[in-house]
This record gives sequence, structure tokens and C-alpha cells, in this order.
Amino acid sequence: MQQITGITHADMADIALGGAFLGTGGGGDPYIGRLMAQQAIDRHGPVEVVDVAALDDDALLIPVAMMGAPTVMLEKLPQGDEAISALRSLEAVLGQKADAIFCIEAGGLNSTIPIAVAATARLPLVDGDGMGRAFPELQMVSMTMFGIQACPMAMADEKGNTLVLNAVDNLSTEKFARVVTVEMGGAALIALFPMTGAQAKEAILRGSLSLITNIGRIVRAEQEANRHPADRLSNELNGMRLFEGRVTDVERRTEGGFARGQARIEGLDRFHGRTLILRFQNEFLLAVEGENQYRAMTPDLICLLDLETGEPITTEQMSYGFSVIVFGLPCDPKWRSDSGLSLVGPSYFGYDARYQPIEILNQRS
Amino acid sequence: MQQITGITHADMADIALGGAFLGTGGGGDPYIGRLMAQQAIDRHGPVEVVDVAALDDDALLIPVAMMGAPTVMLEKLPQGDEAISALRSLEAVLGQKADAIFCIEAGGLNSTIPIAVAATARLPLVDGDGMGRAFPELQMVSMTMFGIQACPMAMADEKGNTLVLNAVDNLSTEKFARVVTVEMGGAALIALFPMTGAQAKEAILRGSLSLITNIGRIVRAEQEANRHPADRLSNELNGMRLFEGRVTDVERRTEGGFARGQARIEGLDRFHGRTLILRFQNEFLLAVEGENQYRAMTPDLICLLDLETGEPITTEQMSYGFSVIVFGLPCDPKWRSDSGLSLVGPSYFGYDARYQPIEILNQRS
Repeated sequence: MQQITGITHADMADIALGGAFLGTGGGGDPYIGRLMAQQAIDRHGPVEVVDVAALDDDALLIPVAMMGAPTVMLEKLPQGDEAISALRSLEAVLGQKADAIFCIEAGGLNSTIPIAVAATARLPLVDGDGMGRAFPELQMVSMTMFGIQACPMAMADEKGNTLVLNAVDNLSTEKFARVVTVEMGGAALIALFPMTGAQAKEAILRGSLSLITNIGRIVRAEQEANRHPADRLSNELNGMRLFEGRVTDVERRTEGGFARGQARIEGLDRFHGRTLILRFQNEFLLAVEGENQYRAMTPDLICLLDLETGEPITTEQMSYGFSVIVFGLPCDPKWRSDSGLSLVGPSYFGYDARYQPIEILNQRS
Repeated sequence: MQQITGITHADMADIALGGAFLGTGGGGDPYIGRLMAQQAIDRHGPVEVVDVAALDDDALLIPVAMMGAPTVMLEKLPQGDEAISALRSLEAVLGQKADAIFCIEAGGLNSTIPIAVAATARLPLVDGDGMGRAFPELQMVSMTMFGIQACPMAMADEKGNTLVLNAVDNLSTEKFARVVTVEMGGAALIALFPMTGAQAKEAILRGSLSLITNIGRIVRAEQEANRHPADRLSNELNGMRLFEGRVTDVERRTEGGFARGQARIEGLDRFHGRTLILRFQNEFLLAVEGENQYRAMTPDLICLLDLETGEPITTEQMSYGFSVIVFGLPCDPKWRSDSGLSLVGPSYFGYDARYQPIEILNQRS
């Protein structure tokens, strides 16, 4: 996989595409973040991307992100200033300027917003993230496994409200930030998990921005060659086509700041006569065939792709009649540890299921 | 009315009694705050009480308070450290130490908690407050009328969670702080409305601590002389006995961080055959006789006293069978301005009624 060293205006199309793919249905539409990043790059120049190994041990990394339900983010386009406002609030509390910007989430809007912030703040962006995909809650990052505190955490909205939180642990941080996000109208810009270069070298998932870019390039190249991207993605990413069919029902509700629900897919062609249920909380979390045959479980990645074009489909875009491929990818091995599964396994989300790796679940199909 | 210059352990009984009276049914049980203040005074010495006129114009006043539903406060006894934690968080943000502590609310728990904080922080307490009584929301203070911002505002809970809020206006501050309070388990310690001596001289209601102390002294002296305190309170405070009867029904629910509801009182003796409804949101806000004859309306004070002892009764203590006097007092004249009524008049609380002063409503009774 090719490692990237910078991000230009032109790169953003591939990054948004790759970000939508790793968004696993959630994380917000990267298109908004793409526009924000492109505007910021046009004004301030390209963004330097650095490997975490190149950072000083005492460098200060600050991750920035948007928090909230993707359905709300679509209606509430960020102005661009809020993320900088959150960054500056956190720097003020720390009494120190950031040396680099970081993505906590490699998927969706949060793969692109940090690029806009890095461009505007004229800071390098670290090639990595805390999830290797998108997840719905902010404690669900590799940093939590390594004992790094989400707080102090800064939040900002488009009205000019800001807030600095010092919660006692990362789950409490999520709970406080979530109710504030709802009060901020459903979406907020956040800066959190400040960490040193030394901490980041141990705790982050590396190479995520390069991965996103490569996925975007593959999808686009295959689309241009009139081939479905799923085959090459399977080969190059150890992925698998889990199911193909038509969306026949979507239940979706916004609840406690999240978009929760499930979608029903009736099989087409070689899947004719079979049914798959996708359950989601912002992101796709479970794929269940028939009564109770699990095909993929969080933290493994479940991506929904258009059956014709291979374009990633988010939970909020998905609706009746879409023809889709359900595509699965193994998660980062860090997530399969006990501490990883306690953060992002099926039981955390309230599903009565014991995690099994996607490779095991699909050995015979 | 006698002006006080200090608060000793022995004074706290009168202050808690007077605070319960001005709590107008809400503000939390001052007994908890009395114990906290007595412990702090025992450890650190008596509290100096100063007139606002004696402060330097550039002195920094920081009000501290407890926020939340009184019913929750009863179950969640503060440790004592949380209020200091909120104070220190706010000082850290301001980069300046407080020169004096201030009460935002003259009634209930919030008339006594600042005494504990002043003792512990070894700071003087200003003789005044922002309400002249208790009110349920934090923007409902005279400081709001004078353009003083509630933010930066610090919040702390007993688990060690803290937060600093910078909302764009005082109503937004209330809304954010309220959802955080609910997430903190229903009650939080707060420091907010930092202001200079010059601002305080213009904006605060003066003499509130002296008033509380004098009310407490009157009630206790009359109780000891086996006289009902209502008569002397009427004479000395321009108050009026609005109704006497027995509580026959109480509806109470905790909703959005508030204790809301209403109580029905059936008349006794000279009120026999008549019915009074008291509506409350933490505090008593409306007294309505029969179908729609208003007897008192927020911001005028509605206090519920035990028919025998004259002891103030809070909305959470009140229950079926209590024999009570409903006692009314005119509010501070500042509240009767248009800006005052827009903050705390009946329509703000969702009651379809135009404010009329208690003296007008009861001219003939």
C-alpha cells in the first residue's frame, strides 16, 4: 500500500470516497468535509501528512472531529470556524499549541474535517487514526485501550457556544459530550484526546490516511474501467462480498443523539431467496442472515456498496429499492483483544451475541 | 432591619430557617447546606459578611451554587469539595483569584452553600443575592437584567467530573448546564456570573443575607413565644396571609431536571369551603383560588408555612394532610420591570396569565 506524504485539492475526491467506504455506513457524509478541506487547502495550501514515527516524543497531537448523528450533520453544515474554535479552546486549557492534527476516526466526515483543520491551522496531519473505521461513540478508540484520557475535551457549535470538559473517564466523557451535542442541535465540533508523540506511537492505528486514499483510488480506477470495485478491494484488503440484494425495508430513528435502526435486504441472483438484516447505530454493526446466522459483527467492518457502481452507501442515504453489495473487512487486530471487544464488541451495543471474526463466520461461503 | 457583619456556627440555624422561608418552596433543603456551613466554620472560622459598597470596583466576585432538582439534592448529599472544585475551575479559566463569594439565590440550599465555600476559601461573603428569593433557572437573576454574562461557568460533581462552559447568552447557559446537571445525576455544584465590584454595585439585590437572618430570628423568636410567626412577618415584611387550609392532593414529577407539579389546598376555619391551587417548578409560582382567581403570581413570593409552628415547608416536603398557611410577599421592585417580568413572569413559565402585583390581587381580602 502506497504511503501518502501530502494532501492536495485534487486528492480530496479519493479521500472522501475512501472515507465513505471506511465509514461503514456512518460517520457522516464525507462530501461536506471534502468541500471544507478543499476550501481550506485552496486558501492555505496543501496539507503535509507525517508518519507518527517522525514526531518528537514530546510533540502535542490534537485530534479534531465532529460529534453527532449523521442525519443531523447533513442539515447542519458546519461553518468551518467551529473546529478551529474547539482546537483553540483545548490549546488554551493545555497552555500549549498543537504540533500536529490527528483523526480519531478514519471513516466518514471525520476523515476529512481534520484535513480542513490541518490546512487552516497550517499544521501537519498524522497518518493514522483511533478506529481504523468509524464508530458511534468517542471512547471507542485505540487510545482508550492504552489509557489515554479523552479529556480535557473542547466542544464548539456554530452559534459560538464552547465548552471544556474534564470527565473522570472516557465513557463519562462520551455521556457528557453526547447530551451537550444534543443540546447543540445534534452536532458539535470537538477537540479531545490530546497526546504526546510518545503516547501516539504506542496507541494509534497507523497508516489510516494512506489506506483511505488507496481505497478511494481503487474504487475510482475500477469505476473508470467499468469494473465493479468489490473484486479488487477483496483482493487487496482481504475483504469479502457477504451478500447482494435489494433494500426492502429501512427502520431509522434518531435516539439519544444517534441514528439507530435496521435495514432488510432481499437477495438477488445467486443470493435469491435469502434475507440479510443489517443493524446500525450510526454505523453498520451486525449483518445477520435468516433467523440468526451471523455474517459479520462489530468491530469487523460492514460496508454497503451500490451494486452497479461500487459507490459506498451511508445508513442515512440507504432507502427502499437500492441494489447493494454488503462488503465485509476484518478490523484492526487491536480490536480483537479483550479490551478492544469490551469497547466495541456486539455486547457493548446491547446485542446478545458473542463476537466471532468475520473470517470464521464466512469460512464456507 | 439589622445588617449582619459575620456568620458564626450559631447563626446558621436562623439562616437556614430564613433561607427555607425565602426558598418559596424550592431551592433545596437548607438543612444540608447548614451542616456544610457549620462544618466549614468549625474548621476555618466565622465568615465575614461585607456590604457590596465596601468592595473595590475591580474586586472579583464569584457566585457559587448548587443546580438541580431539590428532590435529587436530598438524596445526593454534596461532599463539600465539589463547590470548591467549581470555584477553582472558574478561577483557573479567569486567571484570577476570587476576592469575595456571592449567593445567586437567597433561598433554600443556595443561601447556605456559599457560606460553606466562603468559610473554606477564607473569603468574605457579599450581603446580597441575584434573586431576593429562589427561582428554578440560572438566568433568572438581576445580573441578567444588567447584561452580566453567566459564562464562563464551571460545573463539578461528586465523582470528580468538571466542566467549563462558554455559552453565548444566559438562557443558553441554563440550557446547557441543565442537561449536564441531569447527566451528573440530577445535581451539580456551579460557579458562574463572575463579576467586578463595580458591576455588582449596580446589578445585585442588596442585603439578602441580613434579610434571611432577620426572618429566621423572627420565626424562631415567635415560635419560642408560642406565637405564630405569620403575624410579625406580615407586619415587618409587608407580607400577607393568603390562605389557610389542608393539603389534599400533591402532583409532583421530575422533568428535565426540575420538580414540577401542583398542590391542592382545601380551606379551614375562615377559609372553609374555598380551594387554593399552588403550581410549582421547584418553587411555588402561582396561587389560584377557585376556578381562576389569582392570589399571587411569580415573581412575588409564595411561601408555605406550617399552620401550627410557622415552619417553612418545601415542595418536596409537602404532602397530603399538612395544615398550612399560604403566605405572600411582594418581590424586589426590580423584578416588576418589563425586563424582570420577561425573565421570571408567569408567561415565561408557560402559564397563560398576565402578571399582577400581589398587593393589587389582594386589595379586598
